[in-house]
Amino acid sequence: MVLVRQEIGDVLRDVRLQKAMTLRQVAGRASVALGYLSEVERGQKEASSEILASVADALDTPISAIMREVGERLAVLEGVDVDVVGMRPLVPDTLPDDLVAQFDAPLALR
Amino acid sequence: MVLVRQEIGDVLRDVRLQKAMTLRQVAGRASVALGYLSEVERGQKEASSEILASVADALDTPISAIMREVGERLAVLEGVDVDVVGMRPLVPDTLPDDLVAQFDAPLALR
Repeated sequence: MVLVRQEIGDVLRDVRLQKAMTLRQVAGRASVALGYLSEVERGQKEASSEILASVADALDTPISAIMREVGERLAVLEGVDVDVVGMRPLVPDTLPDDLVAQFDAPLALR
Repeated sequence: MVLVRQEIGDVLRDVRLQKAMTLRQVAGRASVALGYLSEVERGQKEASSEILASVADALDTPISAIMREVGERLAVLEGVDVDVVGMRPLVPDTLPDDLVAQFDAPLALR
C-alpha cells in the first residue's frame, strides 16, 4: 500500500536538507517537538494539516510545492503518468520522440 | 492558513461526484463509516494515509492523482504559478532574498 505520509516525510526531509537546515532549526521555527518532526519525516506519524502548514512555513516553502512533489513521487511509485482525475491533463516535460526526431532531421526531410 | 485536509476533502468529493457514486457506496467499498467519510470530505477530519488509500481505491483512482490535484489546488490558493507542464516544483521558482541581494550588490560588496 502506497502511504501518503511516507512521501510527505521524504519530501519534508529533502527540502530541509536542500536548505541545509537541521531538524532542531525547523522544529524550533515550526514550534513542534523535535522528536515528533523526526517521526513525521520518517513517515511514522501523520502530521495534521496545521502542523504541515507550520513546517512548510518554517522551511520557507509553499505547502502547495510540497504537496505537488508528494503527488509526483506517489505517481512514480504507482507508475501513473496520466492525471486520471482528468481535471487538468498533465503534459510530460519531455518531448515525444517523433517530435524530437522531426526537429533533429534536416529541413528538407520535415 | 491553507489547510491540506480541506483540499483533500474537496478533491475526494469532486472525484466521487464525477464518478456518480454516493457517500454510502464509497464508504462501503472503503470500509469506513459514512459519517466519517462525510467529515473527511468536508475537511473536518484528517484522514490517515491508510484511509486515504482505501478511499482512493474505492474511487478507482490512484492516490497520486488525488494528491496531484490537491497540490494544484493548493497552488492556486497560495497564488503559486500553476504547474501546467508537469515540472516538479520542489524548489519554489523565486530566488531566496539573500541570493538576489547578493547579485544586486556591487561586485565589491560580494
